[in-house]
Amino acid sequence: MAIRFRAGSRLPVGADADCPTTCPTRQTLGRLADRWTVALLESLAGGGKRFGELRAACAGVSEKMLTQTLRSLERDGLVDRRVLPSVPPGVEYDLTDLGRSLLEPLNAIRAWGREHQDDVERARLSYDGR
Amino acid sequence: MAIRFRAGSRLPVGADADCPTTCPTRQTLGRLADRWTVALLESLAGGGKRFGELRAACAGVSEKMLTQTLRSLERDGLVDRRVLPSVPPGVEYDLTDLGRSLLEPLNAIRAWGREHQDDVERARLSYDGR
Repeated sequence: MAIRFRAGSRLPVGADADCPTTCPTRQTLGRLADRWTVALLESLAGGGKRFGELRAACAGVSEKMLTQTLRSLERDGLVDRRVLPSVPPGVEYDLTDLGRSLLEPLNAIRAWGREHQDDVERARLSYDGR
Repeated sequence: MAIRFRAGSRLPVGADADCPTTCPTRQTLGRLADRWTVALLESLAGGGKRFGELRAACAGVSEKMLTQTLRSLERDGLVDRRVLPSVPPGVEYDLTDLGRSLLEPLNAIRAWGREHQDDVERARLSYDGR
């Protein structure tokens, strides 16, 4: 994706010159930076999962924290919670279309991190060595 | 940008099945979710700036917090600090090539936030109204 710039300016198109905490960019970042959100989105990208499967996919998550994060993702319309017509009744979690659309910017972040993590590490070593 | 999937899987290519806090994706997200990082990157996307200009661009930032955030961005190799040969000597901050490359995933996040913030708000209202 190319960065477009405003005519006569080097500021990217659509940049929030004064970006408050409530702006969509920072709200989205806040959501993604949440401790378990990335792990859950990536796990659910592979298809619907039961609570136990998600817990196994998020090594170290507590039951309470997983419940809270899933509720929060459900509240934001990113995850769908479905009661299965099984005996005994089960619950399955899956990404909504909205949740699935969030995989795209998440992939852009991941690609940057993978490509440039070594550059960041080198810069830190150099800075700390001054 | 299209999402590619692993052969025989619905998991995006390159997903970290078990993503610890130290993984590049979460480190990058953590960096971006920092209170003033987005505002600073967007302000510097418009060209090099003095400390006072950056402070004016980040409404509400304290001098201490701005100094800390700039140091942290400089340490990560995202921002360059240059002493200007002016009288009196001044200091200018600018994005490095690495910092500039981070504008691209940031733009992907912004685009998603802008396009879907209303969907998220609607989902929240609906969830809270149940």
